[in-house]
Amino acid sequence: MATEPPSSTAPQQDNDEDDLHNKDVDSIERIFESKKVPPWRSQLTLRAFVVSFILGILFTFIVMKLNLTTGIIPSLNVSAGLLGFFFVKTWTKFLDKSGLLKQPFTRQENTVIQTCVVASSGIAFSGGFGSYLFGMSEVIAKQSNEANSAQNIKNPSLAWMIAFLFIVSFLGLFSVVPLRKIMIIDFKLIYPSGTATAHLINSFHTPQGAKLARKQVRTLGKFFSMSFLWGFFQWFFTGGDDCGFASFPTLGLKAYENKFYFDFSATYVGVGMICPYLINVSLLVGAILSWGIMWPLINEKKGDWYPADLKSSSLHGLQGYRVFIGIAMILGDGLYNFIKVLGYTLFGLYHQFSKDKTKGEPVSGNSSPDLPSLSYDDQRRTRIFLKDQIPNWIAIVGYLTIALVSVITLPHIFHQLKWYYIAVIYIFAPVFAFCNAYGCGLTDWSLASTYGKLAIFVIGAWAGGSNGGVLAGLAACGVMMNIVSTASDLTQDFKTGYMTLASPRSMFVSQVIGTAMGCIISPCVFWLFYNAFHDLGVPGSQYPAPYGLIFRNMAILGVEGFSTLPDKCLMLCYIFFGFAIFVNGIRDLVGKNRARFIPIPMAMAIPFYIGGYFAIDMCVGSLILFIWSKVNKAKAAAFGPAVASGLICGDGIWTLPSSILALVGVNPPICMKFLSRSTNVKVDSFLAS
Amino acid sequence: MATEPPSSTAPQQDNDEDDLHNKDVDSIERIFESKKVPPWRSQLTLRAFVVSFILGILFTFIVMKLNLTTGIIPSLNVSAGLLGFFFVKTWTKFLDKSGLLKQPFTRQENTVIQTCVVASSGIAFSGGFGSYLFGMSEVIAKQSNEANSAQNIKNPSLAWMIAFLFIVSFLGLFSVVPLRKIMIIDFKLIYPSGTATAHLINSFHTPQGAKLARKQVRTLGKFFSMSFLWGFFQWFFTGGDDCGFASFPTLGLKAYENKFYFDFSATYVGVGMICPYLINVSLLVGAILSWGIMWPLINEKKGDWYPADLKSSSLHGLQGYRVFIGIAMILGDGLYNFIKVLGYTLFGLYHQFSKDKTKGEPVSGNSSPDLPSLSYDDQRRTRIFLKDQIPNWIAIVGYLTIALVSVITLPHIFHQLKWYYIAVIYIFAPVFAFCNAYGCGLTDWSLASTYGKLAIFVIGAWAGGSNGGVLAGLAACGVMMNIVSTASDLTQDFKTGYMTLASPRSMFVSQVIGTAMGCIISPCVFWLFYNAFHDLGVPGSQYPAPYGLIFRNMAILGVEGFSTLPDKCLMLCYIFFGFAIFVNGIRDLVGKNRARFIPIPMAMAIPFYIGGYFAIDMCVGSLILFIWSKVNKAKAAAFGPAVASGLICGDGIWTLPSSILALVGVNPPICMKFLSRSTNVKVDSFLAS
Repeated sequence: MATEPPSSTAPQQDNDEDDLHNKDVDSIERIFESKKVPPWRSQLTLRAFVVSFILGILFTFIVMKLNLTTGIIPSLNVSAGLLGFFFVKTWTKFLDKSGLLKQPFTRQENTVIQTCVVASSGIAFSGGFGSYLFGMSEVIAKQSNEANSAQNIKNPSLAWMIAFLFIVSFLGLFSVVPLRKIMIIDFKLIYPSGTATAHLINSFHTPQGAKLARKQVRTLGKFFSMSFLWGFFQWFFTGGDDCGFASFPTLGLKAYENKFYFDFSATYVGVGMICPYLINVSLLVGAILSWGIMWPLINEKKGDWYPADLKSSSLHGLQGYRVFIGIAMILGDGLYNFIKVLGYTLFGLYHQFSKDKTKGEPVSGNSSPDLPSLSYDDQRRTRIFLKDQIPNWIAIVGYLTIALVSVITLPHIFHQLKWYYIAVIYIFAPVFAFCNAYGCGLTDWSLASTYGKLAIFVIGAWAGGSNGGVLAGLAACGVMMNIVSTASDLTQDFKTGYMTLASPRSMFVSQVIGTAMGCIISPCVFWLFYNAFHDLGVPGSQYPAPYGLIFRNMAILGVEGFSTLPDKCLMLCYIFFGFAIFVNGIRDLVGKNRARFIPIPMAMAIPFYIGGYFAIDMCVGSLILFIWSKVNKAKAAAFGPAVASGLICGDGIWTLPSSILALVGVNPPICMKFLSRSTNVKVDSFLAS
Repeated sequence: MATEPPSSTAPQQDNDEDDLHNKDVDSIERIFESKKVPPWRSQLTLRAFVVSFILGILFTFIVMKLNLTTGIIPSLNVSAGLLGFFFVKTWTKFLDKSGLLKQPFTRQENTVIQTCVVASSGIAFSGGFGSYLFGMSEVIAKQSNEANSAQNIKNPSLAWMIAFLFIVSFLGLFSVVPLRKIMIIDFKLIYPSGTATAHLINSFHTPQGAKLARKQVRTLGKFFSMSFLWGFFQWFFTGGDDCGFASFPTLGLKAYENKFYFDFSATYVGVGMICPYLINVSLLVGAILSWGIMWPLINEKKGDWYPADLKSSSLHGLQGYRVFIGIAMILGDGLYNFIKVLGYTLFGLYHQFSKDKTKGEPVSGNSSPDLPSLSYDDQRRTRIFLKDQIPNWIAIVGYLTIALVSVITLPHIFHQLKWYYIAVIYIFAPVFAFCNAYGCGLTDWSLASTYGKLAIFVIGAWAGGSNGGVLAGLAACGVMMNIVSTASDLTQDFKTGYMTLASPRSMFVSQVIGTAMGCIISPCVFWLFYNAFHDLGVPGSQYPAPYGLIFRNMAILGVEGFSTLPDKCLMLCYIFFGFAIFVNGIRDLVGKNRARFIPIPMAMAIPFYIGGYFAIDMCVGSLILFIWSKVNKAKAAAFGPAVASGLICGDGIWTLPSSILALVGVNPPICMKFLSRSTNVKVDSFLAS
């Protein structure tokens, strides 16, 4: 048992491209065998960072716009990879023709660009310009009734925003560096977006003559176009709230109210094709358990367990159960796995030190990866991935240094945020960073804002309302979100780097540079919006920034204490926290083979809060792949990932023109609305009059 | 040129299954070679007519319901074929197992059932229970302001309705019998529904061991299920007027207003796959010419050419241009082809009589079909089709006898309808019957009600308002509609019979028996509705019977004379009448090869009135087949018709459960509505209040 990877989901997870080797011919790395992998310093070129800077600005605009309109940000990894390729490829082709090209464009350099762009535009999300940071402002405070005294308000200003981001954004990077081998090599986590990006980058750089790869590229291109055009077509029908295919009550209005519907999202169908069946089924089980059974039951206790006259979004009501039970389960699962991994690590360490030092390899759970049993691709990738090490002492020293700087300087920016709050956050942050990177690897869903909300409550309650607890909570949320968000992003990028043979060192440096770019670009872009649109944050305006008010309200709830939570909520949280640990224990006890049929609590918890619709999308993806495998196993294995990546990339790239359309004020012309028959009769008579 | 089939659309039309012979193996009739074709008398079994009677009642209920709710009736041929098969097959299987089966169930018998059911339920449509016949009643007359004196009203009553139908419904049969060879053998007209039904029936009766056929059946079954489930899925979202996928403004709201949209109708996508490219393109050209150019231009003359304050459905306004220009073009094309065929016929007759009588074959355009140049399927089918003749003298004597009876008896039912009106109708009716059968063969669209409207105007104007012209017009409409509708139905069935080797004689007898059944069943079912629902025909009720009022209003317009038609309308009618003749002339002059690129006026005219949406459906079908042929020509040729038939049949069968759901009062729960962004804002604020 000791050499077995701790996560028993592994047997499903490597079906992603290992099946290619059933044919024993078409290994991706064999195709690339002739191409030398440049040393890590050569992967970091000036042109790469110039392109990254331009794309970083572009994507920051997109993310900022989404922040301030709906607050829902899709993964932009694939778009970054694709656009990075097109930029540099066009440039190098031009240079090549004029005979000036010194260094060819490699997939490693492509990965560096993608990583840098994602890091830089990620700050636009984790910087909280649409949520916690903007929630501190006077505009938002005025909309809330409570706690809008001067000490609970801090208006945006370019200087302090940049300083704040520089202080908090680098911690996440250092916190996951020591965990990268566990996540990528031992756990074989999927990171669907990262995998899709890697497929994309690999396919673009495939040497001529590789027939299957060319076919895969064509398949990818076909589904890319279809997915893009589908996104384009959908756009026309989204001229209002709850309009369009994303609000299609596919399974009926009753099911739609409980968030069960297929929302025609090509992205999540693709993600479902990449994720193992078990993950998708776990998501669906979680959705049924929560939205199908628990929430309707709790809803019947309305007026008994919690006041009946609350708004549906109030955390004092049903929404409170959703958020907190979900968080409890995620924490239970994350903690179990963290402790398990820690145990393995300590055991491995002990084992290494008690024996002779036979190998120079750095320590971790299973000390010598069983290379010969792996596929050629995995062998080569693992070897490259482990070659360029980042010593753990750098990670630890870096983390401690930045933490120290933060503890000293942050209270000067937010004097409501005491130094010991920050110290406490930094002690627990690595656990959460691990949880988020792990969960994201399983499901592609980064829960950064969930962890941020947790920080709001804990720190807000600790500080108390009279001491500026609302602002302290929001600032703490920012610290937490930045750590966990960058942690999952970097691990995602490590996965991409693993699959494209990019060095972890160049990934890390690229991420550091990208983060630094983001810390300057994002506040500037926000500053532009803030000054250009004077009704920023006003409900009903073009940029209502809905999450600003939501985050501030959560902070107010947190200050008032958990005792204001609805009845039985804390008890249920304890139960599901225990349940997550119990199920994980069972999964480890019954062995790999039977564990295939036991859902993963981490995956189950995500729909608790969000709803089942994306689980249904992903199950549709699973179903397509399943039927395809039954009809033609070899073909499904060879082209499944290409189809999935095409679907994800096409839909992802569509966000670019759609955001630009929104920026220039071109709104969709039609609203495809879904009304019950009786409501429709009323609407028809209203329209006729 | 003399032996060339008059219709130059022929080169496209035989791609339907002749391409199968590129492989020179998989001929449908070779598969059936071992099965003896029973003599025509054995094709007419008692069990067939018992099943037909049951199914006839079932379908009459469906059609009557549709008549009285929307007035739009889809083709039920395929459903009849399929259900007939299942009924008799289950019965014969049961008998076979108990050893009592005397006569095996053949595809000819299946065709007889299908023909009989269609004939019987067709009366429910052509009987005008939702249009002209109900338009005579007091309920409808009261809703119209003018001409509701006693002599312009006749309330429904079982006795006169049955008598009327018996008198007028058999004429159509006799009028097309002499034309069947020209339509089916010489013109090779498609009759998409008839062809689909034949494919269905053939596939059900395919002997074991025919591999391709089994594959085709599986393909048909797959697309049948998909189409059925798609219809089922669509149903949920049609809970109101202009709701659901059939009102999807696929190309934008502006285009939707001008009836340009893809309405997701599996039926018409399938029809488009069966019809030749030229037909589909002609439809699209017609749609663009009329709804894209002419109507918007005429609309700008509003207030100038016609009063601006009219309702959009008024025939004094834009709707008048649509209806009458369309009719003019259809008449021009029909007349050209009728005269051309008549010319060929007379020339052939002359040729035959001037030479010796070398062959006993009955006369027609090209007297000896060039059998050896045809495919095996066509050879065998042609031989069987020509074997059992129905002598032309029977048709002529039958027609004259019934016409005489009608002329004498009809004025006793409607004393406003003078005997000479009827005589005039019966002189011109064969032309219209030919036109309709010809157009239906090209496009699957029966224009019976269009010809009926023509009769309303002509006879109504002739009789004049003071002499009960409104009632005379409506009655004349009934006479005309019954003739042209049964004519196209029977020719459609002859096509099915041709492809299933059923004898034309058994087809004719089956149609006569089916018509007789229908003349009794339909009035009884209507009588049931009339007595069960007391608000029948009241606007806004469950059964508003919209066409009742429309037909009555047209009759009132007719009585007032053509002079009340909008300005320039008559002139435009003359122009398009001439245009249709001119284009047909050009098509014949330039030769087959170039005629492929010249649209057919008959097909162009249909969207003039109805709009372009079904043309777009059909072009989508064409496009699918075109791309499929480019990718894999052999496969597209072998499986295209099966896919198309599956799509048509599945959607067709879905009308059965959907009608039953409507009959038992189960309405769709959701309305998928399409609103412009600005309207949506208004609706949202209305719903919020």
